Amino acid sequence: MATEFEMHHHVKYYECDTSGHPTLAMIVAMLILASEADNKENGVGLKRAGQYGGGWVIINYEGTLAEKQPVKGEEVILGTRVRAYNRFFVIRDFWVKDLAGNYYAKVSGTFVFMNLAKRKIMTIPQEMIDTFQMDETKRLPRLEKPSLPEDQAGWAKRDYRVRYFDIDGNQHVNNAHYFEWMMDVLDGDFLRTHQVVKMQTEFAHEVRYGQTVTSTGSTPVEKEGLMVTHHQITCQGQESARATFYWQPRN
Amino acid sequence: MATEFEMHHHVKYYECDTSGHPTLAMIVAMLILASEADNKENGVGLKRAGQYGGGWVIINYEGTLAEKQPVKGEEVILGTRVRAYNRFFVIRDFWVKDLAGNYYAKVSGTFVFMNLAKRKIMTIPQEMIDTFQMDETKRLPRLEKPSLPEDQAGWAKRDYRVRYFDIDGNQHVNNAHYFEWMMDVLDGDFLRTHQVVKMQTEFAHEVRYGQTVTSTGSTPVEKEGLMVTHHQITCQGQESARATFYWQPRN
Repeated sequence: MATEFEMHHHVKYYECDTSGHPTLAMIVAMLILASEADNKENGVGLKRAGQYGGGWVIINYEGTLAEKQPVKGEEVILGTRVRAYNRFFVIRDFWVKDLAGNYYAKVSGTFVFMNLAKRKIMTIPQEMIDTFQMDETKRLPRLEKPSLPEDQAGWAKRDYRVRYFDIDGNQHVNNAHYFEWMMDVLDGDFLRTHQVVKMQTEFAHEVRYGQTVTSTGSTPVEKEGLMVTHHQITCQGQESARATFYWQPRN
Repeated sequence: MATEFEMHHHVKYYECDTSGHPTLAMIVAMLILASEADNKENGVGLKRAGQYGGGWVIINYEGTLAEKQPVKGEEVILGTRVRAYNRFFVIRDFWVKDLAGNYYAKVSGTFVFMNLAKRKIMTIPQEMIDTFQMDETKRLPRLEKPSLPEDQAGWAKRDYRVRYFDIDGNQHVNNAHYFEWMMDVLDGDFLRTHQVVKMQTEFAHEVRYGQTVTSTGSTPVEKEGLMVTHHQITCQGQESARATFYWQPRN
């Protein structure tokens, strides 16, 4: 496995919801922060990626979150390491820990390298592969996939017009916003009283400025002791993302 | 004047827009971060405020931003100091500087202390006033006010339903979101090619979860070498906020 990269991060109030804990969107944003810093430290940061005409794009996540989550103002450790890769895909492990080493979140995600002009996946530049300091993986591990029930009768549904400030440096909607669109269709009381402890997310087609997405989400149902919700984001008839979230009551 | 408080802050990619510089919403969020940290260091942080049943709420801002703005990944200095106060109002000066001491932003804002149960302004607890270590101000300085043309014919207009994650620990919409709603009605090309160099903002009535606001904004017009836009946020027929932004082309 590649070398671990870790960095410290202070949880800001604006990264937290009314519970005083970071939102899932922000946990994911922090993880990307760690991977960008890891790449930068290896001399292949955003600037270097841009010289290849590309940018890293995440296509899926699986992860678990502990019952105890960071609180605003807390200093946490963000970590990442490349677990596996081939010419087109990199699987990274991520973690958020407290200073004593207890895990708040363990997440894995798959990245592709996207040609920003052609909006197409390209082979990962050898210079970047070299920084992983490990052999190519013959058989890439498969991350857990979200399940999506075909029957969406009775699901909550809302439209979201993509705002200017939803767009990131890759000129498309930053993944963090998908989590907000997915969760925002759920009942406010449910969001206030529950926390995500497990999730699987897949991103399909990118969404651009000015487009309108539709977010649909199932009513929470109990399954094996957790509440489960299924989510889909579509845009112009195409799927942009899907997710399954597993929740438990907040303490 | 009260003692200065300064803290270091790393600008995160998710605090920046596609230009790679922090959004105005995020600049303002950082300033509040500094004032919260200042209060906490003085022993009168959010927890202590909560014991009085209250929370600090900002009612207006005036500020200038330098042409050169921080870039993502940069370490900046956030600073604040109480400039003036009486029993109901505190005026704080804020700044964002680079490590060499050059100013990126100078902002002033007025705070009131709100009873979170009654949603009404209360007198500032003496314990907090004591931390300012200065005498009450006889005549509070007046911050520059935004001007709002009466005729809004031809203004851009959009509705925004308040989302669950727009709400902060004070159980109302965090001020940072007003800036996004205000700017999002402007043309994307204008936003991409211009930056705010001066602003005045006033907040009137708070907005709660589930409400829908209307954001209206004027077409940019030139005035004394800068482009000017006027903005208003209304909710259920009441004004929630207004602002005037002064823009110049990005380099």
